[in-house]
Amino acid sequence: MTLAAALQDFAAIVGTENVFNSDQDRNAYADHFAQDPETHLPIAAVAPTSRDQVRDIVRVANRHKVALWPISRGKNFGYGGAAPVMKGSVVLDLSRLKAIDFDEANGVVLVEPGVSFFDLHDFLQARKAPYWLSVPGNSWGSVAGNALDRGVGYTPYGDHASRICGLEVVLPDGDLIRTGMGAMDGSPTWNLYRNGFGPGWDTMFCQSNFGVVTRLGLWLMPEPEALAGYDLEFDKPEDLGWAIDTIMPLRRSGLIQQSPSIGNWLRSAAVMTRREEWTSDKGPLSETVVSAIRKRFNIGWWSVQIRFYGPQEVVDASLRALDRAFDGKPLLSKKLARWKQGDGPEGSPMSGVPVSFPLANANWHGGRGGHIGYSPVLPPSGDLALKQFQRTYALYQKYEMDYHASFAMGERSLTNVNQILYNKDDAPMMARVDGMFRDLVADASAQRYGEYRTHIDYMELVASTYDFNDRALLRLNERVKQALDPNGIIAPGKSGIWTKGARS
Amino acid sequence: MTLAAALQDFAAIVGTENVFNSDQDRNAYADHFAQDPETHLPIAAVAPTSRDQVRDIVRVANRHKVALWPISRGKNFGYGGAAPVMKGSVVLDLSRLKAIDFDEANGVVLVEPGVSFFDLHDFLQARKAPYWLSVPGNSWGSVAGNALDRGVGYTPYGDHASRICGLEVVLPDGDLIRTGMGAMDGSPTWNLYRNGFGPGWDTMFCQSNFGVVTRLGLWLMPEPEALAGYDLEFDKPEDLGWAIDTIMPLRRSGLIQQSPSIGNWLRSAAVMTRREEWTSDKGPLSETVVSAIRKRFNIGWWSVQIRFYGPQEVVDASLRALDRAFDGKPLLSKKLARWKQGDGPEGSPMSGVPVSFPLANANWHGGRGGHIGYSPVLPPSGDLALKQFQRTYALYQKYEMDYHASFAMGERSLTNVNQILYNKDDAPMMARVDGMFRDLVADASAQRYGEYRTHIDYMELVASTYDFNDRALLRLNERVKQALDPNGIIAPGKSGIWTKGARS
Repeated sequence: MTLAAALQDFAAIVGTENVFNSDQDRNAYADHFAQDPETHLPIAAVAPTSRDQVRDIVRVANRHKVALWPISRGKNFGYGGAAPVMKGSVVLDLSRLKAIDFDEANGVVLVEPGVSFFDLHDFLQARKAPYWLSVPGNSWGSVAGNALDRGVGYTPYGDHASRICGLEVVLPDGDLIRTGMGAMDGSPTWNLYRNGFGPGWDTMFCQSNFGVVTRLGLWLMPEPEALAGYDLEFDKPEDLGWAIDTIMPLRRSGLIQQSPSIGNWLRSAAVMTRREEWTSDKGPLSETVVSAIRKRFNIGWWSVQIRFYGPQEVVDASLRALDRAFDGKPLLSKKLARWKQGDGPEGSPMSGVPVSFPLANANWHGGRGGHIGYSPVLPPSGDLALKQFQRTYALYQKYEMDYHASFAMGERSLTNVNQILYNKDDAPMMARVDGMFRDLVADASAQRYGEYRTHIDYMELVASTYDFNDRALLRLNERVKQALDPNGIIAPGKSGIWTKGARS
Repeated sequence: MTLAAALQDFAAIVGTENVFNSDQDRNAYADHFAQDPETHLPIAAVAPTSRDQVRDIVRVANRHKVALWPISRGKNFGYGGAAPVMKGSVVLDLSRLKAIDFDEANGVVLVEPGVSFFDLHDFLQARKAPYWLSVPGNSWGSVAGNALDRGVGYTPYGDHASRICGLEVVLPDGDLIRTGMGAMDGSPTWNLYRNGFGPGWDTMFCQSNFGVVTRLGLWLMPEPEALAGYDLEFDKPEDLGWAIDTIMPLRRSGLIQQSPSIGNWLRSAAVMTRREEWTSDKGPLSETVVSAIRKRFNIGWWSVQIRFYGPQEVVDASLRALDRAFDGKPLLSKKLARWKQGDGPEGSPMSGVPVSFPLANANWHGGRGGHIGYSPVLPPSGDLALKQFQRTYALYQKYEMDYHASFAMGERSLTNVNQILYNKDDAPMMARVDGMFRDLVADASAQRYGEYRTHIDYMELVASTYDFNDRALLRLNERVKQALDPNGIIAPGKSGIWTKGARS
């Protein structure tokens, strides 16, 4: 009854054609990688076309106490897609908000949530604007949504959340704020200076449910004069340790400004081939198979791409410093990559060109493929990375899954992104996924490693591992949630945060 | 009565020797640069030696509804020193909390609020640790307090707030949180990975009154192989515009990683000489005097120091790119600065060596000197900077003050730091300061430029210029304040934020 009344009120705001509640609609907003989408099935969706409609929708939701699950474009497949934590939420689909404001002089965009990486790339190309994006593995996704969820890319602007500068946010009660310098009406520095005056709110709307972001300021990387670097391949699993210890000092010092991600052979291969081409065995892959795949694609057990960006001679000098660091080390191969202005597009994510080929890894097992991400953060030590690899690898073996992982080197940390690739049509395989995931989280937690991001199914579990002082930070988050959203309207359960009494 | 009871309870926690409420004590915690310290005079001070004492003090303050004004070391002289916004607050003096934890492998410290830049420098020197600080103009101050107030330095780590990684905070009710990865008990990545899981809180404790920070993680810059750069001098006021437009593209592209600050002749001269050596005229300085001072010290109307840090040949290549940018431009002079490992300490703030000589500018007018800072943020445009200079300069002329300013070039913005230097013993001069300051704020606000930081006397005024949607961001801050600190215990009025009913 309440829902019907709410949907009617939503329709009065956005038109009946933008309210969705058929079975087909619900399926469109489900988690397509989930074994059982029912667990997180939304009850309906509403798709506004303007910020003011968002404000009206939020007010209606409060009146009817209907939970909204805001999505930008809903393409965060490894973490739940468009689906809400709480079954029966109404998806607030922001994909029709597609405005782009561009400050060309300063290399800054102000984007609405519906703008995809492809959209923004096209926009810049059409203007021949000398700026590069930083893109994640799936460029169908939302530029704003990805940054707010702390997605990453491959260039020096690859820590997307750190390049956010200024937000416009509809609060759970429909009030409207602008963060940072945007708190001054008509400020010309809203998207140019990050701090503002007083407490800084931008990061509070990352991975949170404190409001609905309707515009996001993002800095773009000025097109460099040149790019150069190496694709490095390593022959043995054990090479992971010294490879990280060789690269990290250059990363920490700032000579390497992007976050090199060292990934195993399957990360490279799973987007180029399918398992059935190599074996019909169900168990762990044999060394023979692994070697054959590596040989065909000429890849190491581990691979990493390192790139420098800047004036040609600075890039060249940086490259020589990298050469010196690897001097005498047993690399399997080292391939030079070069690009300079005038060469035509470099064409890869290393220069911010949008891609979608990484999605192909969902086809590894055949059938209706999917995957789920497991991403703990470690200190930047080769020894710890090697141990992490060994423990995780053993769990993949135990659960008869194919190991697929990488370690992205931040300035002071490693983010160990693991994918569990599966075939939803393989029932015995699917039966192993949940237990494996819980074992992985327990293993990380035993090392006191936290995940930086997780699937909607495991937000509660992962949040529970953040246990300092009896989950004091979660308590704080929930006090703020309660103060701003007493009816629990916005994304209940996101990152484990609920209003009073709603968790059960 | 309430106060007496509170002081008694404080004494039970910290000992009577660490509770201060004589006139002399109150004076010690007053704003020494203020014309009338009475306006912001604290009633007493309490100085804990441990985090647990801080928790107990906060609980006592709640019981007695006594306001606390936390200071780290209270050396933020241009903005109020140790003094509270609200007269009669009890200063919570954290300067006895001096622990330093050092992760040498990763170049990270975890410091308590009492640790000064000199302390930390000594600490690193004693260990011959290959890391550099970034220091502000007054290194007596607190490393943690400066970062939390968004202080700046001169190296690539000069945006101190941006190098914060993980806080421990006593909340207004005495609860204790750790932010980011620290929310996991025993996390080894608390101070290595900034984002954590869920909303990011670090920036919420900057320039705020949401809690008392008791430990702060801070990244240190690895000592580079080499440093090189130029001290550039410019002859004419009008050179400001093209100088900024020449440097900013290199700053935006990331080639220049520190924030060069272009300052006028008085910024250079005021720390080396006094006005009375040159003239006894009270009015605006004549061109003859200005020229004579500039000639003696061999300085431009404007000066800027630009530095590169890294491997020798990368630094050299960067320097050549800077040469090309300035090729054919009418510089007054260009002085090369070079340092490399093994040369012995470089010795200046450009390599993070703590200093206090900039404090000497308080002596410019003689008498009991002081100054107050006015710091609006502008888009990074030479034209806008020149206009800002011209309008501000006219106000300095109108109020018969000597123009003292700089423009620090961030990646996408300019911070225009102005000092109003004065002599507290010159009553007619002091009578002009308040009107001048208000005119400056009104002028910036007319351009829609906000200040990034301000003196305790003007927090209310500056907060009022952040007027988007009828001060929506302030409303949000005050909702959070109310939820976390209903009794208004922690730093009432900081950044214009109060609990309900407390503003009046």
